[in-house]
This record gives sequence, C-alpha cells and structure tokens, in this order.
Amino acid sequence: MIAYDLVGIGNALVDVVTHVDDGFLQEQRLAKGTMTLVDSQRADVLYGKLPPGVEVSGGSCGNTMAGFAMLGGKGAYIGRVRDDYFGRVFRHDLNALGVDFSNEPATDGPPTGRCLVLVTRDAHRTMCTDLGAASLLGVGDLNGGVIQSSKVTYMEGYLFDRPDAQRAFGRAAEYAHDSGHKVAITLSDPFCVDRHRDAFRELVAAHTDILFANEDEILSLYQVERFDDALQALHKFGHVDIACLTRSEKGSVIVHDGEVHVIDAEPVSEVVDTTGAGDLFAAGFLFGYTRGLDLGLCGRIAAICAAEIISHNGARPEQDLAALISARIGELPNPVER
Amino acid sequence: MIAYDLVGIGNALVDVVTHVDDGFLQEQRLAKGTMTLVDSQRADVLYGKLPPGVEVSGGSCGNTMAGFAMLGGKGAYIGRVRDDYFGRVFRHDLNALGVDFSNEPATDGPPTGRCLVLVTRDAHRTMCTDLGAASLLGVGDLNGGVIQSSKVTYMEGYLFDRPDAQRAFGRAAEYAHDSGHKVAITLSDPFCVDRHRDAFRELVAAHTDILFANEDEILSLYQVERFDDALQALHKFGHVDIACLTRSEKGSVIVHDGEVHVIDAEPVSEVVDTTGAGDLFAAGFLFGYTRGLDLGLCGRIAAICAAEIISHNGARPEQDLAALISARIGELPNPVER
Repeated sequence: MIAYDLVGIGNALVDVVTHVDDGFLQEQRLAKGTMTLVDSQRADVLYGKLPPGVEVSGGSCGNTMAGFAMLGGKGAYIGRVRDDYFGRVFRHDLNALGVDFSNEPATDGPPTGRCLVLVTRDAHRTMCTDLGAASLLGVGDLNGGVIQSSKVTYMEGYLFDRPDAQRAFGRAAEYAHDSGHKVAITLSDPFCVDRHRDAFRELVAAHTDILFANEDEILSLYQVERFDDALQALHKFGHVDIACLTRSEKGSVIVHDGEVHVIDAEPVSEVVDTTGAGDLFAAGFLFGYTRGLDLGLCGRIAAICAAEIISHNGARPEQDLAALISARIGELPNPVER
Repeated sequence: MIAYDLVGIGNALVDVVTHVDDGFLQEQRLAKGTMTLVDSQRADVLYGKLPPGVEVSGGSCGNTMAGFAMLGGKGAYIGRVRDDYFGRVFRHDLNALGVDFSNEPATDGPPTGRCLVLVTRDAHRTMCTDLGAASLLGVGDLNGGVIQSSKVTYMEGYLFDRPDAQRAFGRAAEYAHDSGHKVAITLSDPFCVDRHRDAFRELVAAHTDILFANEDEILSLYQVERFDDALQALHKFGHVDIACLTRSEKGSVIVHDGEVHVIDAEPVSEVVDTTGAGDLFAAGFLFGYTRGLDLGLCGRIAAICAAEIISHNGARPEQDLAALISARIGELPNPVER
C-alpha cells in the first residue's frame, strides 16, 4: 500500500535564523560567510547571546521535503531529534508544512541539532552547526512501515559520516527495494564524498535507483577533472537507473538508459544565495517523478524550483511553488503510475 | 580501398579579404557586419573597386577541410568552380593546404563563387557573397571514385537550396553507403533549414550517419523552443548514428546510442569572431572520428579547434592545430579501425 510519494531521511536540524551586526561575529571570532561545526556546549553559549530569531525545521533533506510538500506531494520525514525544545520545534514545523514527522524523539544522548544562521546587514550568512542528535541516526530510528509504503526513499549524503548511519542507509534501501519501491540518494557535498569515497561508490552502485549530484560531487566520486569523464564513469560503474547531475548556471543533465535530457538553468534576474539549490532541484524532480511525468518535464520543474530558491536568501521557497510551476509550464499532465 | 579519411562536398567559394574604410561601405550601401547575397555582375563591380586583398579558398566546408588537413587528416574536396581566375585560385589554394581538389572546372555557366570580405578598422566583417558556379553543383560534379574511397563523406547544408544539389546529396550518400562508408551532414544555417525543413528531415532520417547542428539549427529542424525538446525529437525521428549538437559557450552534446558526452566549451581569453566555429568543430570531431578515437576525445579535439578559430578574425586557423591539440591533450592514441 502506498501512503507516501516520498520519505526523506536526513540530518534533522533546526535552523535558528537571526540578525546580528559585524561586531558580534568579531566578538565570537566567526569568519563571515563560513559554516563552522560546533559542539552542543558552544552552540548553547552562542544561542544564549543571540537576539530573538526565527526557528524552523532545516537541513538539506528537510528543505527538499518542504519544497516537495509545497508542490503538492505527500511526504514523510525520518530523522533523529531529542525530547527537547528544539526537537518539538522541528516536529511541529515539518508537520505544519504537511510533512509527516513520526519518529519518536531520543530520550538520551546529545540535544537536537541546530544550525545558527547569523545574518548580517550585508545579507551574508554565517553558520554554526551543532549536528547534535541528528548525526547519530541509526537503524533503530528507521520507521520500516513508512519506508515500505513510500514510492521513493530519499537519503542525504551529509548523514554518511558515521558507520551507524551508513548501515541505516543500507537497511532503508532494503526496506524500499523489498517492497518494490525506489531509492534516491544525494551526494550532498564533495568533501563528504572525499572522506567516504569507497562507501559512496558502493552505495551508488549497489543500492541507488536515482542519484542526485552536483558537478563537484560527481567529479569527486570518480576522481576525474572533467564533467564528461564523470558522466562516462557513472555510465560504466554507477549502475543507477536515473542520474540527475546539476551544473549551476550550466543547467543539468538527466540520464536514464538511452534517454538523455539536457536541461537549461531557468533564468533568474539575480542570484542572491545559492543555499538550497540542490535541495529544491531534488524536490522538483522527485515531485514530477512520483507523478509519473516524463523525465524532461521533471527536470524543468526541478530547474524552476532551484531558480526560485537562489533568487532570495534562505533555503525555503518564498513563492508558491505549485503556482510558479503552473505559470511557467501550464497544467501538468495527470499522474501516471510509475 | 581507402584513399581519404574525409571528402567534403560544399560551396566552392573564394574569399577575397580586403580592408576598407567606413566610407566605402556607405558609398556601396552595405550595412556593416551583415552578409548580403549578390549576383556576379554586382560582385564584379565591387571587386573592381576594392584595394588589393588576400584571395583564399573559403566556404564553410572548405574551412572544415583546411582544419582537417592541418590536424593531419587526409582529405579531398568536391565543389563546382568555373574555368576562370578564381576557379584556379580555389584549386591551387586547397591543394596547397594538402586537400585534393580534383573536380574538372565547368566550362559554361556563371563564374566561380566569391565572398568579398570587407574588413573595417574596427575589425567588423561585412560580406558580399556571389555563389556563382558553386551553388549549381549537381550529380555530374560528384567524383564517385573519391567518395567510394573516403571513410566519411561530409556535406554542408548551405548547398541544399537547389533541387539539383539535393539530388547530388542523395547520390553521394548512396556512393558512400554502398561502399560501407559513413555520411556526415551539417545543417549550416537555421534559415536554410527553415526553407527546406521536410527535405532536411528526410536527409537526416534516411541518409545521415553523423549529424552536426548548432542549437538554432536543431530547434528549427524540429520546430521546438527548447534544446532538450530538440534532443528528444532527434532521438525519436532523427535515426542518426551520432549527433553532434553545438551550443556556443554552453559547449556541445554528442549522442551515440546509449552513449552521451557533454563537452564543455574550451576557454578562450576573448571571443573575437565566431565565424567558422562550427566548421572547425566538425574538422576536429571528424579528425578524431576517422582515427577511431573515443567520441568524448573527438568532442574535446573539436572544442579546442572551435576555440582557436573564435579567438581571432577569420575562419582559418592561425595556430598549428595539431600542435595545439598535442599541447592541450597530449599525444593522441594510435589510430583504430572504425
């Protein structure tokens, strides 16, 4: 039985977005525009000093699920939070977006993960991330019933740093495949790929139906210097059913057996902040895919979603994505069984 | 028996490149930067008024063959000239480049075709083309023996305006295929495609192994607005073995069955004049192809040749292409039977 179009498994992080002045960054010795990993103690200290801000569910996969729900897809989320204030924020926020977050919170271990997003007047974003409970996700956190009843299980590579999470990915893929469903993976980050290249290659070759990767990530995966060389390596070693390779302003390339789509980037008047471009591309593509649309059309929906997110600050859409798709493309074909 | 790697069939035009001032263009009512088709009489009058210039073999296919020979390929050329001064210039110049031009000149009809290239101080090029004898090419001008002994027969779409030339294309393709060889076509021009869309579609679907087209041309061929839609139409209706689609600064896409290459444009410090970019792309690709190289490598050679030609004025390479390829790529693999 299908209950969900898509279930995302990711780093369950709460974004705390707040405005500070340059003096605050200097005082805290934070280099403007960077992302620093911090521990829970340091995050607590910083958080205590911040002015009031907006607290929303975040994380790469969370962004994807938020976009997916806005487009009209039925989604669920699996991630690890603690039984604390931020854990409740995360759950409430995702549920309010229409994404089912049904994990029980952990009752011990580190607190819910947070990303403190410090926005200065010049619109630069300086981030301090405490992964907290999120990165400790393991097989025990997987809700097998949700995975078995989702057309596609989507997992973010950021989680892939710990052996426990790697095992959870493998188990989630088994749940999905045993039920005849699909597994999608995003590589997330070239440095993450670099740290776990063999494990990622194995994951892609053995468990992945739909692969998302940007240019840096796919070059890192196959240790080549040119996009076309990565494309050939993927063809030879990847064994994925569908590959979606994103190339920023160069658009994207979608490959499925003998079918190839070369999708142009959707024009934007100004690129303000590229955070979330890949997350929203995946949201748009998977929305089209789970409706059974032609892959070229899936790619165009993806490009429109990515263009929306980079035209403003932050990784959550400001425009109504469904309305935007309808305005740019027209009415979508009726869903088809895939 | 193979005597040639490549035979080109094209508009045999002599380029007369000369420097004029803006006053001359005004006096002759020529809009700067345009290409105007003129008749032989008008070309004679203009030519009589020009200062001394450089007279070289030209035409799109001539440019390709010149590049092909510079790379080290063995080439021949088929085109129609008259038994006049410019006919001798064309023959001598091509032969001097190492390309066999063995057609007997026509003894009646219009004179050899000329392209008067008027270069002003600001480096703009204003062109007046008298196609003359060139466009009257027919089956009688085809040297069947040359075609039968060439690995690939390459034909330029510019010739495709007259029924006689269209018949000659069909006959040339028969000669090539009957001998087990390949036929390559370049669409040349979106307006030309627009004038003869059905005939071009038939040519592509029924006679073409290797298709070259730029983005405007392939959009025109299938009357679509997006590159990816053209790619899908080509897959569905084109029936070509290899398609090379060039996209200016977006690079090129090469498709062969389930094999796809997405080749980036080779960086250039300044784009000076894009004339000949497609011609030299074809030269580079076909050089690699006729040596049996991997299609991705063929595409890279093509991109390097195209980058050379757009970095200066004129459609003939200024740098030694073979040396350039060797510097950028290194030693090429040994030729392989294709």
